[in-house]
Amino acid sequence: MQTRKGQSIEDQSMEIIEQEIGDHPYSGFEWQVVRRIIHSTADFDFARQNRIIFHKDAIKNGLGALREGKNIIVDVNGIIGLLNKQNLADYKNNVICDISNPQVVKEATKLNKTRAQTAMRMRADEMNDGIVVIGNAPTALLEVIQMIKEGITKPKLVVGIPVGFVCAAESKEDLQKIDIPYITNKGRKGGSPCAAAIINALYKIVRESSS
Amino acid sequence: MQTRKGQSIEDQSMEIIEQEIGDHPYSGFEWQVVRRIIHSTADFDFARQNRIIFHKDAIKNGLGALREGKNIIVDVNGIIGLLNKQNLADYKNNVICDISNPQVVKEATKLNKTRAQTAMRMRADEMNDGIVVIGNAPTALLEVIQMIKEGITKPKLVVGIPVGFVCAAESKEDLQKIDIPYITNKGRKGGSPCAAAIINALYKIVRESSS
Repeated sequence: MQTRKGQSIEDQSMEIIEQEIGDHPYSGFEWQVVRRIIHSTADFDFARQNRIIFHKDAIKNGLGALREGKNIIVDVNGIIGLLNKQNLADYKNNVICDISNPQVVKEATKLNKTRAQTAMRMRADEMNDGIVVIGNAPTALLEVIQMIKEGITKPKLVVGIPVGFVCAAESKEDLQKIDIPYITNKGRKGGSPCAAAIINALYKIVRESSS
Repeated sequence: MQTRKGQSIEDQSMEIIEQEIGDHPYSGFEWQVVRRIIHSTADFDFARQNRIIFHKDAIKNGLGALREGKNIIVDVNGIIGLLNKQNLADYKNNVICDISNPQVVKEATKLNKTRAQTAMRMRADEMNDGIVVIGNAPTALLEVIQMIKEGITKPKLVVGIPVGFVCAAESKEDLQKIDIPYITNKGRKGGSPCAAAIINALYKIVRESSS
């Protein structure tokens, strides 16, 4: 839960963002999501060069999956730490992260893959109709794209916002070429605070539209 | 543990950073820390406008506290999720985060404080000789500064790299005025990936200097 003090700081932050952002291409729910990413990173760049890109059905599918208590599969535990726990409990969304699973470590070492990538492959079934959230590892995003192409999984939404210098930008371009709703961004930036901000913003919209 | 594939991607990333960074004011261990922050955020700005600032004893004290198995007190669980678990286990550093502690929630609500702030005040004893790591809440950093001024706690190192629009930049300026070693940065940017990168980089230096 958020205390009154915490809420007041958040409200003030959102006002400062509105005052300073200037021209940007977002409105409605999409702006609510982007604004929360800027709030979490203090980086206006997510509305500019490294701007956030939404598939036309991304918000609708994301809200639906949260409301219906579908799974959320994430690549790193850092995302879980930044998600609002009350929301997860109230909407009964199960968050899955296998990066530290000993079986994943063993398998990744054997196949010369990353742990994040191997963890995704193990959860094809749980991803069906759920939300996949990649905030760190481009290899995990590329694996999910490959799994979707193979037809072995069909998430409702892929949030693909990994960070880094090796294949991060490229993996996000590939994500935009498949036929599954996505939220992603241009370029190398990203990270677990961005990924968590997207999910927290979607939950806020769900709450506000049901109250 | 890191797989061979994961290590190879990390090595490639570090090479790209070295190629692209250009002139910067860092060297030695300090550059290892800053480089890992850039690796975690894909944001060269941490070596420029929002640059990282080290107290002269910060690295020495940080390495000492990790080696000696001292406590690490963090403001948000997001940092814990991004710390290398093998290091924590091997060096027996206890990571403490009370933000979701029901007693903290109750107390914060009663006193009209933030949860992060209230959690810091509860852990004055555990902070002694340990490392305090603030990656999210400026209110938590301001509380730690106040506690140090009151003389009720004396950490070996304060990593103060909160993010945001309300008091984040100001809290970091205040941190530089007290007589405790710190690692911080200029401006609004920061976050749990930066905070975790600093601790992970320090662990890497500990390992390399003991092998």
